[in-house]
Amino acid sequence: MKLLRVGTAGAERPALLDQDGTLRDLSGLVGDVDGGLLADASALARIRSAAEAGELPELAADGVRVGPPLARIGKIVCIGLNYHDHATEAGAAIPSEPILFFKAPDTVVGPQDTVLVPRGSRKTDWEVELAVVIGRTARYLDSAEEGLAHVAGYATAHDVSEREFQIERGGTWDKGKNCETFNPLGPWLVTADEVPDPQALSLRLWVNGELKQDGSTADQIFPVGEVVRYLSHFMTLYPGDVINTGTPAGVAMGQPEPKPYLRAGDVVELEVEGLGRQRQELKDA
Amino acid sequence: MKLLRVGTAGAERPALLDQDGTLRDLSGLVGDVDGGLLADASALARIRSAAEAGELPELAADGVRVGPPLARIGKIVCIGLNYHDHATEAGAAIPSEPILFFKAPDTVVGPQDTVLVPRGSRKTDWEVELAVVIGRTARYLDSAEEGLAHVAGYATAHDVSEREFQIERGGTWDKGKNCETFNPLGPWLVTADEVPDPQALSLRLWVNGELKQDGSTADQIFPVGEVVRYLSHFMTLYPGDVINTGTPAGVAMGQPEPKPYLRAGDVVELEVEGLGRQRQELKDA
Repeated sequence: MKLLRVGTAGAERPALLDQDGTLRDLSGLVGDVDGGLLADASALARIRSAAEAGELPELAADGVRVGPPLARIGKIVCIGLNYHDHATEAGAAIPSEPILFFKAPDTVVGPQDTVLVPRGSRKTDWEVELAVVIGRTARYLDSAEEGLAHVAGYATAHDVSEREFQIERGGTWDKGKNCETFNPLGPWLVTADEVPDPQALSLRLWVNGELKQDGSTADQIFPVGEVVRYLSHFMTLYPGDVINTGTPAGVAMGQPEPKPYLRAGDVVELEVEGLGRQRQELKDA
Repeated sequence: MKLLRVGTAGAERPALLDQDGTLRDLSGLVGDVDGGLLADASALARIRSAAEAGELPELAADGVRVGPPLARIGKIVCIGLNYHDHATEAGAAIPSEPILFFKAPDTVVGPQDTVLVPRGSRKTDWEVELAVVIGRTARYLDSAEEGLAHVAGYATAHDVSEREFQIERGGTWDKGKNCETFNPLGPWLVTADEVPDPQALSLRLWVNGELKQDGSTADQIFPVGEVVRYLSHFMTLYPGDVINTGTPAGVAMGQPEPKPYLRAGDVVELEVEGLGRQRQELKDA
């Protein structure tokens, strides 16, 4: 299923994009798309059977804003340098175990919302990523297979990054990853049953129409199930937590000088295969 | 005012510890102690006047569990190496600007709750800290004075840390800061009006009755108002966000070998002047 949330920011209602591409209202059936729903197999089954029975009311799709497809995100754990090609362009060694950092849930915006270039920023950069949404509490898992079994679904994520804040201002990467609007998510949360192989998805990103990133999750150093297993030994993952699993090569930081960092007026488009497309215009904060 | 939350984990009710040390029920007056309450001056005024008028029902304090004093925490930003004496014991240079890392809100437990030594941990360490709770949205602030004006209150925090995970496993410090139960908070959220100078508070921590940390917020490299101002240029701070402002000298990592890292059965007690005392027993995860 393709779950989503539509409406004005902060007042989104839960919805489904059905097999025919018709937008359907879920607000009569569930409160919201959040960790509680994802952990509730019977609620998900009710949505599925209502959709199959044609019982869900149609929603007008024209001009409707699409919000992030997940409410009340608990935490967003991000994996750094998780693609061979990106580690190479960054001039970094291939990590021997996953590198992690955090984005605050309040950085999440809808897939078509404005992204703000922070005041004083000179190095705002793009990163298309496969986001993993947790559906079951994960704690000290034994195997990558178990890791995958704790995934509720997947989404397209934009891990916007300010490289000077991230790398040149002292301390950890978190400093360049948490500016407001820095995590567009969606349009859809695609349930895991519709993503048979998360390691075979193409990821693409364009800036002002020019293709900049063109990768595949097949190039991930640590695949999704292993990332979930690994993280579960350092923290507990809860339903509604999100993992941004890293970006392939092609970011601005990896280009020759002068590096083409983002500025107000730029338009970024990105997609992960089967998970939907985003489009953001950059503005000054 | 000393705001707190009492009851079983996940079902706490809001309460007030009044001037006489009597526990008072706030559940008839406010839904919970959270960012919404802290941003609502009239709700805080209603609590204050009800307390002064003696209108708040008494709560039985005997045997009641004290939970974390804040619900629905949005994010926890932590400042690293923010005391001269701790930077020295860590063998680190004095930072030229604040170092930051994150703890997930799901690491927060009550001040007397069990702290779990992670599986495989050999270097679980203690850190007493002054926690700052944000009361107004802070974005691109101009001065430390403005920073202080966005603080709703203060609390005692225990920034439990696994040093091997933090430093020796690759990537950022976040890896050793987010194990479950790693952020005991409370007992109280003391409103800012009752903390006239946050840079003049003693902090102490004992392990099995032996004093290990004995510092003062006067030794902070970046004082509270400056930390809030600084952070507001890298992220937006919202009501209900928490800042752990760093720890003074005396952690296990700073001791001679063999370093006395925490094990199951150890008891840690800690307090920040005027903000209340914590006591945790360590158990294996």
